Amino acid sequence: MFKEIFDNVKNKKPLIHNITNYVTVNDCANILLACGGSPIMADDKDEVEEITAVCNGLNINIGTLNKRTIEAMLIAGKKANELGHPVLLDPVGAGASKLRTETAFALLKNIRFSVIRGNISEIKTLYSGNGTTKGVDADISDSVTKDTLDSAVAFAKSFAEMNNTIVAITGAIDIVTDGRKAFCIYNGNPMMSLITGTGCQLSAMTSAFVTANPDKPLEATATAVMAMGLAGEIAYQRLNELDGNSTYRNYIIDAIYRMTPEQLEKGAKYELR
Amino acid sequence: MFKEIFDNVKNKKPLIHNITNYVTVNDCANILLACGGSPIMADDKDEVEEITAVCNGLNINIGTLNKRTIEAMLIAGKKANELGHPVLLDPVGAGASKLRTETAFALLKNIRFSVIRGNISEIKTLYSGNGTTKGVDADISDSVTKDTLDSAVAFAKSFAEMNNTIVAITGAIDIVTDGRKAFCIYNGNPMMSLITGTGCQLSAMTSAFVTANPDKPLEATATAVMAMGLAGEIAYQRLNELDGNSTYRNYIIDAIYRMTPEQLEKGAKYELR
Amino acid sequence: MFKEIFDNVKNKKPLIHNITNYVTVNDCANILLACGGSPIMADDKDEVEEITAVCNGLNINIGTLNKRTIEAMLIAGKKANELGHPVLLDPVGAGASKLRTETAFALLKNIRFSVIRGNISEIKTLYSGNGTTKGVDADISDSVTKDTLDSAVAFAKSFAEMNNTIVAITGAIDIVTDGRKAFCIYNGNPMMSLITGTGCQLSAMTSAFVTANPDKPLEATATAVMAMGLAGEIAYQRLNELDGNSTYRNYIIDAIYRMTPEQLEKGAKYELR
Repeated sequence: MFKEIFDNVKNKKPLIHNITNYVTVNDCANILLACGGSPIMADDKDEVEEITAVCNGLNINIGTLNKRTIEAMLIAGKKANELGHPVLLDPVGAGASKLRTETAFALLKNIRFSVIRGNISEIKTLYSGNGTTKGVDADISDSVTKDTLDSAVAFAKSFAEMNNTIVAITGAIDIVTDGRKAFCIYNGNPMMSLITGTGCQLSAMTSAFVTANPDKPLEATATAVMAMGLAGEIAYQRLNELDGNSTYRNYIIDAIYRMTPEQLEKGAKYELR
Repeated sequence: MFKEIFDNVKNKKPLIHNITNYVTVNDCANILLACGGSPIMADDKDEVEEITAVCNGLNINIGTLNKRTIEAMLIAGKKANELGHPVLLDPVGAGASKLRTETAFALLKNIRFSVIRGNISEIKTLYSGNGTTKGVDADISDSVTKDTLDSAVAFAKSFAEMNNTIVAITGAIDIVTDGRKAFCIYNGNPMMSLITGTGCQLSAMTSAFVTANPDKPLEATATAVMAMGLAGEIAYQRLNELDGNSTYRNYIIDAIYRMTPEQLEKGAKYELR
Repeated sequence: MFKEIFDNVKNKKPLIHNITNYVTVNDCANILLACGGSPIMADDKDEVEEITAVCNGLNINIGTLNKRTIEAMLIAGKKANELGHPVLLDPVGAGASKLRTETAFALLKNIRFSVIRGNISEIKTLYSGNGTTKGVDADISDSVTKDTLDSAVAFAKSFAEMNNTIVAITGAIDIVTDGRKAFCIYNGNPMMSLITGTGCQLSAMTSAFVTANPDKPLEATATAVMAMGLAGEIAYQRLNELDGNSTYRNYIIDAIYRMTPEQLEKGAKYELR
């Protein structure tokens, strides 16, 4: 499936409107360019409808949210829905503050999302209206491992079905599901958690993949997740004994830039449940 | 001409006040340091007059603009004009939304710019009050190629003359003109468009070059444009088969850091029209 | 002393709340991860109390401050004090505008800081209510050299004592003091001043070191300062003839990622006064 999905991204060059945090925004822009998409960042309420209209998809990320940008997210999301553009939600830190949790709820209530991508704590928060997130990383007690995979998959499917969306829960094992079929993905490297923003980058890239493949949102999301994980593996292999997380960050984006569907065909590690 | 222009930047170390977008701001700061300048970023209306006053030049970039920062741009620009400091405008995405287009118009009306740098769509928008920009990249139909160079040069000269400014239109071929003389610049590499912010970086660097060379703004702007293009060529040659756009971004800034006037003397590809 | 201090950071993985500028925020996040800490960035007044409460320490940096974020700094700082969390102040550009100077004063008046880290001009501004800062770098006339070290140490001790805090004045020679004992630190490389944000990064990292070592804030701060300086030396040695400040930035963060207490034991250059 990878070849068609990749080719669509490279050929359509989807333009993605990002309303995102100021921490990882540069990496999000560069990974969008790396994968074949094109980024535009705009968060003023007076321009987001127009900007979304000239784009093909929308990526909403609530890291470093504030009242001004929350309003812009809602306006842009509704417009994107109206236009039939795919919209992705990255609920960064949902559960860590009322503002984030309530913003995530308000977005879920007012906007139809094609994909929701987060760690398991964030998705649990969205699900239950309570939960804990330590910073932007999954709580260890909430991590998805082989032992907890069955229940995590069931949870993910249930959440996806409830919201009529694709859900991507990323962590040591990633789960991507539309409520019926679930991809359990084993790509990646633990060092990815020692770079800021690999999740944000994946959300941006997933927006491009889903936007370029509107008929296969589940497969497109899974492909983006596998590509990011494989990039983490390829980049890790390039590191020498002096390289650390900053060089690793660059190499991951580089690996996305160079990635071919053939490479992913060979390197993807997943099973369907 | 390069030696004198470079030496002035290195010796005067111009301090540049940047009101710019949060996507590429870190790269703008680092390229300013790389070329011999010094950056300061400040965008609150209550401090921009003072900050501009302690600086030597001002760089206004409307990417990720909002009402708060637009007000700061106007205040800072007027103060810089009052003080006789060079001011550069980078009208990122002008044409993509009314807010950007009208902000660009308001800035043009209220502030005297030493240099305006953008892609051809953005400059067309400034010229005509309408136009299209796909994201922050030039429309393909509007790209400057050998076939369209004559008309693009005429257009650039006309716009520069109307606004009594230097205009730098960058793309596959770059045009830098003061309305009379035009540099057509053939440096650069297509991969530069696959990094976010090479345009923003060039605007920041151009601010430093023009500020350090107040008597030769045309030559200083052309030199900055050629230096950026040559940096794109040098960086491209360093890439190995695993490197992508993230490493390329680093190598371009590195190339500016290492660039000598002798190197540019040898590598510059331009003609006068 | 280094082993215990390092081990505490690696084992406790302190979660640091950062209210910081948008220029260097990504590097601050990555260096926090590199040293063993964990970053969270949040600056809306409606969430900073909760975010600070789930964190272990707070890092306040006034670069690119604005009215909205200043209010958040005050709220977060008071909450962190209430909870007994270490709070660090980086008074970026204090002295360059009334807004920055007055904000720094207001923060000093309302919040108890465990550590204040800045260049000598910024600290002089805090001390005297006047002073000059050229951009965010120390004025040359104010630089700390062997000739001026005695008076600078006396000044630093006096400021630390007055404010009952650790003060870290960084520059060619770094001074870290609690008002009684002063570490004079000779690590570092002049090229560090040609990267944006090495000071901001050091502040973020220092927050983690002090948070993980609450009983030894002086030693923890001195260790962070030496680690950053040594990272600048190690990174410099890796540079080839084509590398510039962008690669250098990556290598410094990499060096922090790889740094061991043994390496620091061997490479630290300091004396006590």
